[in-house]
Amino acid sequence: MTQTENNKVTISVDAMGGDQGPAAVVEGCALSAAKNPEIAFILHGDEATLRAAVARFPVLADITQIHHSPDVVQMDDKPSQVMRRGRDTSMWSALTALRDNDAQAAVSCGNTGALMAVSMLRLRKLHGVHRPAIACLWPSRGKSGFNTMLDVGADVRADEESLLQYALMGSAYYRNAFDTARPRVGLLNVGTEEHKGRAEIKEAARLIADAAEIGRYEFVGFVEGNDLPSDHVDVIVTDGFTGNVALKTAEGTARLISDTLREELTANLPSKLAALLATAPLARLRKRMDPRRMNGGVFLGLNGTVVKSHGSADATGVSAAIKLAFTLARSGFQDRMAERLATVADAQQENLLSKEVPSSDDGGAEQGKQMGQS
Amino acid sequence: MTQTENNKVTISVDAMGGDQGPAAVVEGCALSAAKNPEIAFILHGDEATLRAAVARFPVLADITQIHHSPDVVQMDDKPSQVMRRGRDTSMWSALTALRDNDAQAAVSCGNTGALMAVSMLRLRKLHGVHRPAIACLWPSRGKSGFNTMLDVGADVRADEESLLQYALMGSAYYRNAFDTARPRVGLLNVGTEEHKGRAEIKEAARLIADAAEIGRYEFVGFVEGNDLPSDHVDVIVTDGFTGNVALKTAEGTARLISDTLREELTANLPSKLAALLATAPLARLRKRMDPRRMNGGVFLGLNGTVVKSHGSADATGVSAAIKLAFTLARSGFQDRMAERLATVADAQQENLLSKEVPSSDDGGAEQGKQMGQS
Repeated sequence: MTQTENNKVTISVDAMGGDQGPAAVVEGCALSAAKNPEIAFILHGDEATLRAAVARFPVLADITQIHHSPDVVQMDDKPSQVMRRGRDTSMWSALTALRDNDAQAAVSCGNTGALMAVSMLRLRKLHGVHRPAIACLWPSRGKSGFNTMLDVGADVRADEESLLQYALMGSAYYRNAFDTARPRVGLLNVGTEEHKGRAEIKEAARLIADAAEIGRYEFVGFVEGNDLPSDHVDVIVTDGFTGNVALKTAEGTARLISDTLREELTANLPSKLAALLATAPLARLRKRMDPRRMNGGVFLGLNGTVVKSHGSADATGVSAAIKLAFTLARSGFQDRMAERLATVADAQQENLLSKEVPSSDDGGAEQGKQMGQS
Repeated sequence: MTQTENNKVTISVDAMGGDQGPAAVVEGCALSAAKNPEIAFILHGDEATLRAAVARFPVLADITQIHHSPDVVQMDDKPSQVMRRGRDTSMWSALTALRDNDAQAAVSCGNTGALMAVSMLRLRKLHGVHRPAIACLWPSRGKSGFNTMLDVGADVRADEESLLQYALMGSAYYRNAFDTARPRVGLLNVGTEEHKGRAEIKEAARLIADAAEIGRYEFVGFVEGNDLPSDHVDVIVTDGFTGNVALKTAEGTARLISDTLREELTANLPSKLAALLATAPLARLRKRMDPRRMNGGVFLGLNGTVVKSHGSADATGVSAAIKLAFTLARSGFQDRMAERLATVADAQQENLLSKEVPSSDDGGAEQGKQMGQS
């Protein structure tokens, strides 16, 4: 993606989708604009509402266009309905602006299923991609503070070829979002011993190992659920069913602990006093674990960068998703990711990378290595 | 299971399996014995070591037998190896005592895969059970403080019939462990809308709904990862791959938060002072979230109650696993669970419960309801 003439990166924002309404979305845009002089927006939604919301933030005045769309995708709309009858929605309009190169990335807080369906319809899949994936951010003990996991819900099944593509797309994403030359990729499994796990996962491990050189990542092998925040891995590859369950399990666990902590710190007067004195460290804990910092599911495998913001995101959350969209759009990672996917597909077609189970001498892996070094 | 003549419930304990060695296991037995006058033990392992360990706890003197076994299953032993060459191990011996009715339940901290393999070999599956499952405990906002989830790793795949059996076995377990007449069963999925999820999960939902009356549970439908600690569900049913990832993800998330909290509370002098004052509420938080309270994976679907204690369990953790084994053994749930599984299998065979996808008039579900009410 290239920048616009005035040297700004334009983000196409579906301003109507979130639970908190357009005011929170517009405020999120304003937060980003205040920190980032290179950003511009096209906001999609009810024109009168958006014009009023934008007027509250002078910082948005010169960098914001409004595209009127009369309709809104509801949270319980089925993707198939939206694909058939969604032309007048703010979501559709936001993706159309991206497709037409009026913007370099799109952000929406709307219904995930509908957003993926309309994204596939308007942007089309990248050449050779079986299925797009959704990559989420995960709090990590590592340097960047984030790991990424994919897929977290675009598709409930993934065969070994899809898992390989997730590794390629996820590492391209991580490299550009966190400026990491060679991200470390792990494959989620129930055990790190070789004899555990499903057959397609073992096969995927071989494919991912083989493509490491072309994909410019390091494959660290199998990882388990407790490794998701690990500093030994950057990109965790899994199918959309498992990824979605893991993501929501972590959210639920964090909420349970934070609620329990709050209960105990308000249980009696001495506890309340202690909590008062511990305000600073507790605030730092909250900040480090703030799910809003992690906001932004990136759709990978499409002709265009789409970021799904959490439905309940407030202005801070929306601003985090916009920052992510901006970073990716400016990095031009889309083109490089597409190139890498095509290279691996070509190599597989020419049998330079193994597609079949290797014979006992592991010739496939050797071939893969030679390919990578050439 | 019946109690022994002297009115005690005897637990057969593999005393050699854990990371912390036999001393921690024996101390766990002593902790249980001090609180529970109805318990007795058969300890399996190196006789001299165990005799010395037991001598430290007078409470164990009259209630403990030692069965010598010269060999120990290692954490990295493959299940197939142990099945072939494990006859002299403490694990094998512990399961043999259970099979021979010398004990009413067995506990081991050893290698999960090997324990399941040897359990299946020595105890055999219950009549009609496709695959045994491992049920874990989960901290919950509910009254009992615990939910249970299964399978968490016995089998990486589960078809709809297996998921139905998990619902029956899991609700029998929960009913007896937590004295709950009609446990609420939920099926783990990526969304609560009907159009989401894999085909076998939708089919499983129908089978589980149909068998609710016979199984004496309430089916609450689909639940998601963030519902795992919910007070709207008691038993969460899923395949062993997803369950294992969810369990370990929750463990990893809890550890990340607790480590971050510790870092912030020791970051500087004011924080350290605040932590000192907050000692009581933080201790209560730790206690409520203590994974040792949740220790004990129960193997379901075998002719006998086997509890897998965490490999790294200390005496407190071992004692929790022993308490679970004791509660289940005394409740006689094995017999009732076997009976219920057989009733559902019979009903399915006689077509009183639907096995096929129902026609659009949902005749299958109706049939199931009638069956349940009869």
